[in-house]
Amino acid sequence: MKKHIRIIHPAINADSLGGRFRQFENEQLKISFTCLDYGPDILASRLGVALATPDTCAKAKEAEREGVDALVIDCMGDVGCHEARESVSIPVLGPYETSLHVAGLLGHSIGVATMVDEVIGIMEIMAKQFGTGDKLAAIRAIQMSVAEMEADPGLRDQRLVEVSEQLVKIDGAGVVILGCAEMQGAEKRVSAFLAERGVNVPIIEPVSTTIMIAAALVDAGLTHSKQSFPEPRINQIAGYDKLAGLIRGSDRWNK
Amino acid sequence: MKKHIRIIHPAINADSLGGRFRQFENEQLKISFTCLDYGPDILASRLGVALATPDTCAKAKEAEREGVDALVIDCMGDVGCHEARESVSIPVLGPYETSLHVAGLLGHSIGVATMVDEVIGIMEIMAKQFGTGDKLAAIRAIQMSVAEMEADPGLRDQRLVEVSEQLVKIDGAGVVILGCAEMQGAEKRVSAFLAERGVNVPIIEPVSTTIMIAAALVDAGLTHSKQSFPEPRINQIAGYDKLAGLIRGSDRWNK
Amino acid sequence: MKKHIRIIHPAINADSLGGRFRQFENEQLKISFTCLDYGPDILASRLGVALATPDTCAKAKEAEREGVDALVIDCMGDVGCHEARESVSIPVLGPYETSLHVAGLLGHSIGVATMVDEVIGIMEIMAKQFGTGDKLAAIRAIQMSVAEMEADPGLRDQRLVEVSEQLVKIDGAGVVILGCAEMQGAEKRVSAFLAERGVNVPIIEPVSTTIMIAAALVDAGLTHSKQSFPEPRINQIAGYDKLAGLIRGSDRWNK
Amino acid sequence: MKKHIRIIHPAINADSLGGRFRQFENEQLKISFTCLDYGPDILASRLGVALATPDTCAKAKEAEREGVDALVIDCMGDVGCHEARESVSIPVLGPYETSLHVAGLLGHSIGVATMVDEVIGIMEIMAKQFGTGDKLAAIRAIQMSVAEMEADPGLRDQRLVEVSEQLVKIDGAGVVILGCAEMQGAEKRVSAFLAERGVNVPIIEPVSTTIMIAAALVDAGLTHSKQSFPEPRINQIAGYDKLAGLIRGSDRWNK
Amino acid sequence: MKKHIRIIHPAINADSLGGRFRQFENEQLKISFTCLDYGPDILASRLGVALATPDTCAKAKEAEREGVDALVIDCMGDVGCHEARESVSIPVLGPYETSLHVAGLLGHSIGVATMVDEVIGIMEIMAKQFGTGDKLAAIRAIQMSVAEMEADPGLRDQRLVEVSEQLVKIDGAGVVILGCAEMQGAEKRVSAFLAERGVNVPIIEPVSTTIMIAAALVDAGLTHSKQSFPEPRINQIAGYDKLAGLIRGSDRWNK
Amino acid sequence: MKKHIRIIHPAINADSLGGRFRQFENEQLKISFTCLDYGPDILASRLGVALATPDTCAKAKEAEREGVDALVIDCMGDVGCHEARESVSIPVLGPYETSLHVAGLLGHSIGVATMVDEVIGIMEIMAKQFGTGDKLAAIRAIQMSVAEMEADPGLRDQRLVEVSEQLVKIDGAGVVILGCAEMQGAEKRVSAFLAERGVNVPIIEPVSTTIMIAAALVDAGLTHSKQSFPEPRINQIAGYDKLAGLIRGSDRWNK
Repeated sequence: MKKHIRIIHPAINADSLGGRFRQFENEQLKISFTCLDYGPDILASRLGVALATPDTCAKAKEAEREGVDALVIDCMGDVGCHEARESVSIPVLGPYETSLHVAGLLGHSIGVATMVDEVIGIMEIMAKQFGTGDKLAAIRAIQMSVAEMEADPGLRDQRLVEVSEQLVKIDGAGVVILGCAEMQGAEKRVSAFLAERGVNVPIIEPVSTTIMIAAALVDAGLTHSKQSFPEPRINQIAGYDKLAGLIRGSDRWNK
Repeated sequence: MKKHIRIIHPAINADSLGGRFRQFENEQLKISFTCLDYGPDILASRLGVALATPDTCAKAKEAEREGVDALVIDCMGDVGCHEARESVSIPVLGPYETSLHVAGLLGHSIGVATMVDEVIGIMEIMAKQFGTGDKLAAIRAIQMSVAEMEADPGLRDQRLVEVSEQLVKIDGAGVVILGCAEMQGAEKRVSAFLAERGVNVPIIEPVSTTIMIAAALVDAGLTHSKQSFPEPRINQIAGYDKLAGLIRGSDRWNK
Repeated sequence: MKKHIRIIHPAINADSLGGRFRQFENEQLKISFTCLDYGPDILASRLGVALATPDTCAKAKEAEREGVDALVIDCMGDVGCHEARESVSIPVLGPYETSLHVAGLLGHSIGVATMVDEVIGIMEIMAKQFGTGDKLAAIRAIQMSVAEMEADPGLRDQRLVEVSEQLVKIDGAGVVILGCAEMQGAEKRVSAFLAERGVNVPIIEPVSTTIMIAAALVDAGLTHSKQSFPEPRINQIAGYDKLAGLIRGSDRWNK
Repeated sequence: MKKHIRIIHPAINADSLGGRFRQFENEQLKISFTCLDYGPDILASRLGVALATPDTCAKAKEAEREGVDALVIDCMGDVGCHEARESVSIPVLGPYETSLHVAGLLGHSIGVATMVDEVIGIMEIMAKQFGTGDKLAAIRAIQMSVAEMEADPGLRDQRLVEVSEQLVKIDGAGVVILGCAEMQGAEKRVSAFLAERGVNVPIIEPVSTTIMIAAALVDAGLTHSKQSFPEPRINQIAGYDKLAGLIRGSDRWNK
Repeated sequence: MKKHIRIIHPAINADSLGGRFRQFENEQLKISFTCLDYGPDILASRLGVALATPDTCAKAKEAEREGVDALVIDCMGDVGCHEARESVSIPVLGPYETSLHVAGLLGHSIGVATMVDEVIGIMEIMAKQFGTGDKLAAIRAIQMSVAEMEADPGLRDQRLVEVSEQLVKIDGAGVVILGCAEMQGAEKRVSAFLAERGVNVPIIEPVSTTIMIAAALVDAGLTHSKQSFPEPRINQIAGYDKLAGLIRGSDRWNK
Repeated sequence: MKKHIRIIHPAINADSLGGRFRQFENEQLKISFTCLDYGPDILASRLGVALATPDTCAKAKEAEREGVDALVIDCMGDVGCHEARESVSIPVLGPYETSLHVAGLLGHSIGVATMVDEVIGIMEIMAKQFGTGDKLAAIRAIQMSVAEMEADPGLRDQRLVEVSEQLVKIDGAGVVILGCAEMQGAEKRVSAFLAERGVNVPIIEPVSTTIMIAAALVDAGLTHSKQSFPEPRINQIAGYDKLAGLIRGSDRWNK
């Protein structure tokens, strides 16, 4: 049975990012993509995440109504992932939480190579919150913004190799997670360069890995716990106009 | 110097709740109150919290512009507290995080008496996230909704006494936090009833305690770390109409 | 591309157990099964595990030579899983470590319903070792041996329902793992009975779930870390006769 | 209502240190100061702390009899703080425990800049004991004794700036605590120098911060838990002559 | 070579307690006993412990001068143990810290059967401080004071059996520590009664076990770390009269 | 009463290693030595450990039948230690678990100086499993194999001094464990060299220290918990020929 997985990119103006996922489609797997109509263009702050969460939940409800089998958030901040789980019954997976668990399955301690220093603190707190902080060796930044990575992918890969080597040799990591959804595509080159330097560790690209895990959960007939993510109870929403209507969407939790 | 503390109740339709705080005003302390214009009426879900966060941040910026000295969130979900810290420089305190730290100062292990079972999981995760999980003995629910507590405050107090006694005698708590902002006013009766049963532990009413701590931080000249809560970078917000304008408010983080 | 997953049951005299896995085969997934030629018939002790490990490693090497894509151990003791990872490069997954990570993805805290009290201690230590102990709410036993479960599956299911309900209601679990490979098949009935009682939590059957995750890792091109599981160096093995030869198998680690 | 807070410096020959606290007095706050009659002159050892504890408890009882509202220990070893809590009912706060909790409220991870290496071990153990070890990023020493800091406050400030920068940039601290009561007065200069280098973190001066928190607890009507700090039962004390009499002081715990 | 171990009972009026230790003497082991001249008669409070510490240190220095090989504190509060380590170079062992480590060597999780509820909190904190909290399953009280245990040893043993069984069956303990030095002599009867009920766990009597470990450390040529327990620096002690002189004793740390 | 302790070296071809232990014999202590007949020659891998475990258990049963009082494993991998505890009632101690507990008794944090980087990961996991991970400061490798240490003991000692100094000065260790059984004999020289550099920490040689602790447990009448290490139940073992017979040995666990 063909599974349908929807990728939600939790920011506006991001339609062009959907093309990256076509490569994962096959006879068993249909992949569709959406980004937000309502929300911010940049996510790397708590406020950005908060502004992106309502429409992410609306997009999740829309996907469930359309018969999608599972949802994957296309951002390492796992934006709206746990909130959306309250509203839908199909699996919703965030790439950070998922890749931390997959990394835990593959090796003894985990390194994360992220963009910039300012997200390290929040990523450490999230790892604790996910119950995976115990295996986290270190998070190191390559000190490049999304724009800089797009402008110079070669430099991005070189920095990823350097930082990954530090994560393994200095911090003792046995597995490395690429800590930003915009690093997709670098994993094979980084892995090859590291192998040349005698460093053989799995390099996890979080979003593509999360797609595979989402498909596995569908095959296993599993979804998140309604005990842990109970249905929200809200009677009235003021001031979100169309968005409020979309979030309600069905009459599930809106009396 | 008179300090001005603003209470933000992070839900709509809550103007009537402001009266509770007048009793804390004195020559040194001015207290003002606001609730939300945009957001949900009920908060006890991750989605409710997400919908309440944007206007909480807008209200925080407004307060800072008006010269308020510190902000206190009037909800045990600490709704929007860390997000607002990114946008303003005056102290913003949530009653759950604050009362967990105060409880840690007063005794060896902490019990929380909350409303209903369904919030226990998220409150445990929040305590870990705040770095205070180590001292948390247990969270127990009195099994009453906000509406039920309002309808029968006598029953609420009786249940609080029973649950507090269990927290102390079964779970070993040395301090008890009233785990919902709507339990305000019960602390003295609960404390007296417990003392009659030979149980002498501090009963912390979170919001009033947080007001006192906020005033102390102002006196000490301290506010939250901009290293931990850096300024958000967002270029564009779609679909929040007036709310988006309010969040930007000043031109601080909006280029 | 069709994936080939081999199930290794790490005990002797267990050929009849292979039939259970045929149901998971499809156009994308070939499943083969083997049990041990050398080792014990019962595994529920550290000694039993030690005696089962060498031939499990031999069977893993054999599978890798035959072009199998991934290996799944058919025992909640994850017998020989980490040892076999040293010798082969294809993914090797144990159902206990895997289902703890999957459970962590689906809910806030994890309950395990196992057979008998005497394995609880070792299962708790293993969860710590896997770095997942932080999310483990409790392990409870249904107090039935493998033989008793086989003799009375109805009683087994009834006990599983009772114990699962305790894990959720008393211990706060949001997800329940069936803690023994011999409970396979019970998950749907247990889940349905629990739903009737108003308890809606995912019930994870570990071995089938692990098969799906193994397939996902193959799809994602991921395997365990050679940094964490380096190639063993042994020059000589005395007294394992044929078994020693099988373990060497290829000349990979045997100089 | 004017609050009266007493500072106890837990060493002998320290009368001259009281002047530092006059700046914190105002219409709401009376501050008095005492040092010990019986005990050691230097505290930086477990033995020094043990010798200072009895008279600290005697001074605490004396203060309670005199109607003082709260007590603050003037030493980062929190000398006698928990012992005195057994004997009195007014709040007793140590600056190390208090500033760790305040730092936890203001940022994600905490750095401490202390005097010399030899106190780091005991300060790490104390942070664990207080339940705040989880948020402690690192403790670093400026390698100056109290005498050296007094002789060259400029060098002290320079070293504090250097060490604070290391705590933030290398250890990831978001808040810095000045780890010795003798660093009082440096906080503003250190903060300004750090800001020039682009490091914006709160610098907590522990004793003055603890005075503000003590006043807040008085305002909130809170004191430590008698469940956690029960009344001591001692029938007879040999060999402490006058000191023993002072400790008994009232007939509260001395039958 | 005959080893000489000195037992220090850290309270006054306790000379009669020394006889208990004669049974452990043999050709290899000389045991001497002392109690305090200066200090309290009852220890079960932080204040009691503080008042007992100075003379415990004096007795430790006296023992070292007399050529004693190792010291054992005769109280589960490990009174003065870490303070005395600063002043002497021979091993000083407390029975609580030592028995927690021995219990950790013998089984997976540790139960402690103590006297009364009011010491449980402080014993839990001490276990964390010793780095052994991770293995502590639970501490339960038999609800008898020292006086009551002396008056009715039969009842004491019966309660110990009941509480030990709860520690094993409810809390999952694999080893039980008798949590008070006054329970010495009960270990064999408790062990036998438990065996009759099918509960086979080691029952550790802390003081006698600590004597054996102290002898082992002497044989291994090991003592505590001066890095962790550095020499105290104190110039002057006021008001301890004779006791101050005894603590200085030699001129080791007193300039 | 003379105690008889048997050292089991868990590898083949190691008879020559027994001579090292004669120095510990005296009137109270008889020491005998055995190595394996069946198993690998090199242990530094999980597979090596698995292949060594069965005959280690057989040797343990043999020793118990011969009236030996306690067993010590001669390898820092604690090979077969917990498995053998299931089969015998006399104490079985591994040097890694034992020296971690002894180190915990002697200082605040523990450093381990091991051979090569590749064993660090597994040693960290073992420390967590033993419940002692909390006190482990760091494990550092001297980067020499067993063969290289044997070829150049002077270089080994020099590297141990360097690495021990790093463990103390950089990682904050207060105690250092020699992390390989082949470092025996270096402890005094390393200790002396470190003292010359002003570093005074206990250097624990694990196997000799474990012998002393084993003797202490015999004197204290203590052995491991049968609750934690229950008797194995195995009906049939295939393919271990003579070894299987030896493991059964008596009819204790073999029905």
